[in-house]
Amino acid sequence: MRTERLEAFSDGVFAVAITLLVLDLRLPRTNAPLLNGLADEWPDFGAFALSFVIIGIIWVNHHALFSRLRAVDRPLLFINIGLLMSVVIIPFTTSLFARYLAHGGNDAHLAAAIFSGSSLLMSLGFFAVYIWIDTHPSLRLDATPRPSSLRNTLRFGIGGVAYAGGVGLAFYSAPLVFVLSIAVALYYVLDQVTSREPVEG
Amino acid sequence: MRTERLEAFSDGVFAVAITLLVLDLRLPRTNAPLLNGLADEWPDFGAFALSFVIIGIIWVNHHALFSRLRAVDRPLLFINIGLLMSVVIIPFTTSLFARYLAHGGNDAHLAAAIFSGSSLLMSLGFFAVYIWIDTHPSLRLDATPRPSSLRNTLRFGIGGVAYAGGVGLAFYSAPLVFVLSIAVALYYVLDQVTSREPVEG
Amino acid sequence: MRTERLEAFSDGVFAVAITLLVLDLRLPRTNAPLLNGLADEWPDFGAFALSFVIIGIIWVNHHALFSRLRAVDRPLLFINIGLLMSVVIIPFTTSLFARYLAHGGNDAHLAAAIFSGSSLLMSLGFFAVYIWIDTHPSLRLDATPRPSSLRNTLRFGIGGVAYAGGVGLAFYSAPLVFVLSIAVALYYVLDQVTSREPVEG
Amino acid sequence: MRTERLEAFSDGVFAVAITLLVLDLRLPRTNAPLLNGLADEWPDFGAFALSFVIIGIIWVNHHALFSRLRAVDRPLLFINIGLLMSVVIIPFTTSLFARYLAHGGNDAHLAAAIFSGSSLLMSLGFFAVYIWIDTHPSLRLDATPRPSSLRNTLRFGIGGVAYAGGVGLAFYSAPLVFVLSIAVALYYVLDQVTSREPVEG
Repeated sequence: MRTERLEAFSDGVFAVAITLLVLDLRLPRTNAPLLNGLADEWPDFGAFALSFVIIGIIWVNHHALFSRLRAVDRPLLFINIGLLMSVVIIPFTTSLFARYLAHGGNDAHLAAAIFSGSSLLMSLGFFAVYIWIDTHPSLRLDATPRPSSLRNTLRFGIGGVAYAGGVGLAFYSAPLVFVLSIAVALYYVLDQVTSREPVEG
Repeated sequence: MRTERLEAFSDGVFAVAITLLVLDLRLPRTNAPLLNGLADEWPDFGAFALSFVIIGIIWVNHHALFSRLRAVDRPLLFINIGLLMSVVIIPFTTSLFARYLAHGGNDAHLAAAIFSGSSLLMSLGFFAVYIWIDTHPSLRLDATPRPSSLRNTLRFGIGGVAYAGGVGLAFYSAPLVFVLSIAVALYYVLDQVTSREPVEG
Repeated sequence: MRTERLEAFSDGVFAVAITLLVLDLRLPRTNAPLLNGLADEWPDFGAFALSFVIIGIIWVNHHALFSRLRAVDRPLLFINIGLLMSVVIIPFTTSLFARYLAHGGNDAHLAAAIFSGSSLLMSLGFFAVYIWIDTHPSLRLDATPRPSSLRNTLRFGIGGVAYAGGVGLAFYSAPLVFVLSIAVALYYVLDQVTSREPVEG
Repeated sequence: MRTERLEAFSDGVFAVAITLLVLDLRLPRTNAPLLNGLADEWPDFGAFALSFVIIGIIWVNHHALFSRLRAVDRPLLFINIGLLMSVVIIPFTTSLFARYLAHGGNDAHLAAAIFSGSSLLMSLGFFAVYIWIDTHPSLRLDATPRPSSLRNTLRFGIGGVAYAGGVGLAFYSAPLVFVLSIAVALYYVLDQVTSREPVEG
């Protein structure tokens, strides 16, 4: 199967998921002054911006990985569907995190762990795609070197390790998970922007 | 008409339908502990995962069928629209099933029957596409063999028979319909992953 | 500008609009038996099916019109955006019609008139595209004959006339508008399925 | 990276964002006459039409800019994601504006300023894309002239200046911001329709 169809379908899912984020921005209740109403919703705005950037980064990574393939096989189709499932739940877990972060207490810890856990799931999905491509050279374009290298393994691995650490960190401090997630997002944006070579090459 | 447009439109519908599933994941009421709130929503999470996999499988099957065509005619456009309608209602019927399964009683039986009935409808939609392609060789790529064979008829038929049985089974035991649906989904994933040949070839 | 981009964007809007229809299918309130709850919602199911078929037909027509072009100009881009706007509100007006049809009285008449009016708007949008293409031969593929012919004018006109009539009919009988809309939809499905030639040729 | 993928993803976001606008059209409460219910919702209908036209214009502009490129680099991918974020929030800020415009008082001023501010953000996003393309000739198709010219700078700048002015104007008169936005939208529609040359050429 050609990669175009998988990419078109994945692009559609990314586009819908990133745009649906706006549905979490709700008009404030109208009996309070607008400024207060919006101030109460700041976690929703933060969740919107963070989710948007996270899904945007995933989309860029997804492209970089799949643009180097000349074909996809059936197992890769299903691994990709699993990866997309982890992407689609990110708006839900981010929203959950945003809501309960302000609550504090056990709920904030649990919500932070779920948020970091869903990022970890997404990271594992990418890792599965990466391993599959690495072990199936026939799927790769001829000119594409073996993707596995120390630098790439570090790149793909660092997110997963950070998110796994975040699940534990969540039970110590929920706000630190928020800081960690922004740091990981910034790392990936900077890494991608500064690298001349494609992520997987 | 070329197949690209039909595939692009269908891909769009699949991508939106599979992503809209996340809208059924709602934040729990905030006055209960988060853990309890999430535990109460487990049927929604199960419905999300099951619908996601089902629509993912349908997408893979849809590709396998249409990638072998060189053209589509008007009747096939409308058969495909009917098929897409049956796909689009799957999130609704899955959600209905998930909600009423926990209720038990007559409502659980009815919801299970509706869920299995909508899967049957989708199966019949695929069957109609399959028959149309089989009886209109001019739509197929030259190199494509006649799709009808014992193995393929079994493959396409087995889902329909199982779902039709599920409608009856629903009035005996609603949870068994859930088990049956997961079994059928697993069968299709395994069948597609293990087969080297395309589904319709 | 090439037609591909306009078609891809339009396809996206059609795919989202047709899939969003499922959001109008709501789970019944859970304190009543499921069967009664679903029975109360039959207008929503009818509206879903009718909207799905209407938007499906519009998508087929849209393809037939634009597949004959080799380029689009700026005015046509904006005419198309106007046409898409009329498509996007169809789920709203259909839902309005379905809800108020059961109420009867003045509200049913008004809702039927709004529903027929939005179909008329869509018909006028198509007519504008048709006129623009007819009067700008440089946009058409060389081999494409002038689209205007008695049969095509009849085809494009008959929907507009019927919907305009429907606006008036609405104040006499709302259910008759429902019957009229189904009749027009069936006419277009049958006309498209039976014609070998493209709609605009 | 080829521009097709960025354009396909952006088209998807535009298509979803423009279609989601219809979700703000809600059925009136059913205990009042339909005519009164709809009359109460006129700000929502106005917001729908205005947002639809604004996003439509942005889509046309986005095409005109990116159709002249032969490649995109990583920074441009992220600039584009930022631009898309500003597009995706337009339905929210328009809806906020529509709701609070009728309220009057401080809330109307604030809502108008937020609305104009989000338009300004979008304008700045476009400006960043424009600057990046202008300063990176290697991304442009060979035949494409340098985009910066007096006329283009005026075109791109006029919206930004108007929206920035709108933020200030909002605290003087909220309805005037509405008038200003319609005027800017009309200017861009007319400018694009009358110009033979592409926006950036």
